[in-house]
Amino acid sequence: MKNYKIGLLGFGTIGAGVVEGIERNGALIASRTDIQLSLNMLSDLDLDTDRGVTVERERMTTDSLKVIESPDTDIVVELIGGTGIARELILRALSLGKPVVTANKALLAEHGEEIYRTAHENNTDVFYEGSVGGGIPVIRALREGLVANEIERIYGILNGTCNYILTSMEQDGVPFDQVLAEAQAEGFAEANPGLDIDGIDTSHKAVILAALAYGKQVPLSMVTIRGIRGLEITDIQYAAELGYRIKLLAVLKHEDGEVEIGVYPALVPLDHLLASVNGVFNAVMVSGDVVGDTLYYGRGAGRKPTASAVLGDIVDAARNLAFSSPRRVPAFTEHTHYERVRPHEDIRTRYYLRVSLLDKPGMIARVAGILGAQEISIASIIQKECDLGCHAPVIILTHTAQERQFQAALEQIDALKEVDRPTVRLRIEDFK
Amino acid sequence: MKNYKIGLLGFGTIGAGVVEGIERNGALIASRTDIQLSLNMLSDLDLDTDRGVTVERERMTTDSLKVIESPDTDIVVELIGGTGIARELILRALSLGKPVVTANKALLAEHGEEIYRTAHENNTDVFYEGSVGGGIPVIRALREGLVANEIERIYGILNGTCNYILTSMEQDGVPFDQVLAEAQAEGFAEANPGLDIDGIDTSHKAVILAALAYGKQVPLSMVTIRGIRGLEITDIQYAAELGYRIKLLAVLKHEDGEVEIGVYPALVPLDHLLASVNGVFNAVMVSGDVVGDTLYYGRGAGRKPTASAVLGDIVDAARNLAFSSPRRVPAFTEHTHYERVRPHEDIRTRYYLRVSLLDKPGMIARVAGILGAQEISIASIIQKECDLGCHAPVIILTHTAQERQFQAALEQIDALKEVDRPTVRLRIEDFK
Repeated sequence: MKNYKIGLLGFGTIGAGVVEGIERNGALIASRTDIQLSLNMLSDLDLDTDRGVTVERERMTTDSLKVIESPDTDIVVELIGGTGIARELILRALSLGKPVVTANKALLAEHGEEIYRTAHENNTDVFYEGSVGGGIPVIRALREGLVANEIERIYGILNGTCNYILTSMEQDGVPFDQVLAEAQAEGFAEANPGLDIDGIDTSHKAVILAALAYGKQVPLSMVTIRGIRGLEITDIQYAAELGYRIKLLAVLKHEDGEVEIGVYPALVPLDHLLASVNGVFNAVMVSGDVVGDTLYYGRGAGRKPTASAVLGDIVDAARNLAFSSPRRVPAFTEHTHYERVRPHEDIRTRYYLRVSLLDKPGMIARVAGILGAQEISIASIIQKECDLGCHAPVIILTHTAQERQFQAALEQIDALKEVDRPTVRLRIEDFK
Repeated sequence: MKNYKIGLLGFGTIGAGVVEGIERNGALIASRTDIQLSLNMLSDLDLDTDRGVTVERERMTTDSLKVIESPDTDIVVELIGGTGIARELILRALSLGKPVVTANKALLAEHGEEIYRTAHENNTDVFYEGSVGGGIPVIRALREGLVANEIERIYGILNGTCNYILTSMEQDGVPFDQVLAEAQAEGFAEANPGLDIDGIDTSHKAVILAALAYGKQVPLSMVTIRGIRGLEITDIQYAAELGYRIKLLAVLKHEDGEVEIGVYPALVPLDHLLASVNGVFNAVMVSGDVVGDTLYYGRGAGRKPTASAVLGDIVDAARNLAFSSPRRVPAFTEHTHYERVRPHEDIRTRYYLRVSLLDKPGMIARVAGILGAQEISIASIIQKECDLGCHAPVIILTHTAQERQFQAALEQIDALKEVDRPTVRLRIEDFK
């Protein structure tokens, strides 16, 4: 039996979950792996709040460097979050040759290159299963299980807060602002919800998946990001009538030598598995050229699911220590197979449009004419009834066209004096 | 860059898929892993059939021992199948200290103990991702990603042929025998379909999952196995009316110090993700005490998906060679956490019953009375209309009771002279 001690940075929700997990299943882990894990020290600015687990006072400190530098700390677990002090602490641990486990998606999306390089230079490991999809072992699937596959497409529901909001809006018919307020009251959403509802968190996870799938760090600035803020319940209802459910999707594609990477609220056909992923659950569909379509599903966040992923990583780090096999599976390997990231304007997709149009003769022909002039074909069109002279919602499902064509068409449509508010535009994802 | 050479035993569908996968993505694998894979030799009794890939004649032989014993063979890949010669060849390779990759579920279910012990004694590896769920990396998820979890429940749709048959019966309204004949004609089902439709193949996979989850080799003889042979379309239709879809499920549970392991056609609620797994796809739901519910989905069989799994395993074996870390994650670790396998008669579940009952006054009360005497509560009951004096199907959904209670009740019900054919009994799976 080998013994390894953990230095834990950050004793918040997930950190306490990790300590609890070792207490609960440490003996099980040892019987499966011949490795005994224990806590050496932990650091946090707040050492007084009750976390639901007991840690001896002498193992707690406010000084994270002390935790990292303790000769008894074999593995450093960073659960502070953010891109400031967490970055410095991880780099310090790696520079001492100590393996690091983190669930910090923002940090990896913004500073992954520096962190992976530092791990490489110091011949040690960074593990980050907890950064994407909570407890779902999707990083492991991409890095190892599907290693023989060219990854063609990835579609992910990667933010539990957004998915919870979308599910509640649809199932309870409650508007966005009200669901968000309720989610905040219940602790499912942050007081400052922008990271979640504006799609930022999902874009961080998309960048991490892209690095694994395509062997390249895509700068966040090159990711097209649209969130769900202000999504109207009326569009959720129209989508349902048309056989779709709206999900916030990360979309990654590799085709024609280009990589496409974006985050959008999208209409997903009701009979697709991703449409059945509801509430706080996450799912990632990964399509490889050998394996075909695969999907991974589970709780995307929260104390216990994320702790499960972090503990799996800790075991991986410990196994590499036990077998003197650091970097057996590197955190990141550059292996670019594409020429460039597809510019936003070049992205091709189908769209759901809701035009608010004065109900008078000839108006639909006018709108259809503008779309046609941009070579956008209409797949179906539904005009909702209203009294003559009012503004009626006209729902248009288009065939595939380029982003720049939609932008040009919508500029003209929204400039019509018969259109009284900006046209709502949502991506339709057919998974092709 | 390290170079490793493969000795391939069996050049059938999957074997050819593996050779094709190395040709297609060998350079990609090398750029990701710093490991260059190539074929040393392959063996098969039939070296003449066109497999869609070209292998130089001097690399092919009918003598499998020659492939194993060649000093240039670093990793042995067994894709012959069956429990005869495959077993001997694997044991020979392991005794030479060479790592083995196999997709042979029957062999691992029946002789896993001997194979894992031989690998252990010779300090080498056995990998078998391809044995369960085709290309889905679920073995890896259980062995590594969820290593910190007590596994509470596993539900698997693990046989693509059965799932294809069930989906076709439901969607096209075609009876069992006809769908089976069509599947055989199209190559989706074997000429001798018993392994698939009688649930044997699924039970092999259940035993492999149980070994990983519970750290114990459960003898096949202790697995309750019911297949889908003779399933009637009328029950698929009644199930649909009641909000269920019938799936052939492997069910593993760990509760009250006992492990339950069985294979049954079961009614799955339509809103459950497993109900949406259609056609040849497989899915495994794994519930851990830390992570909660997770699910893994993909193509469960076929040349390319299985080749993807085998190639992932080959890379794993090669990494252990490159890092001198054999048995870093052992194929199997005994870590029993339960006292016994639950006897068949003790299994508790809900049931769907279809009683063919003479339509005369008092008969339903009589059947309900027999169930009540066995302490089986009725959740709902539907009598289909027919003319007075005919035998009408009476559909009963029960609450949970023990297998032995159902057996006793059904013996009495089927002995009634007003019942003209054996009662159909199907498990209802509520995933609780």
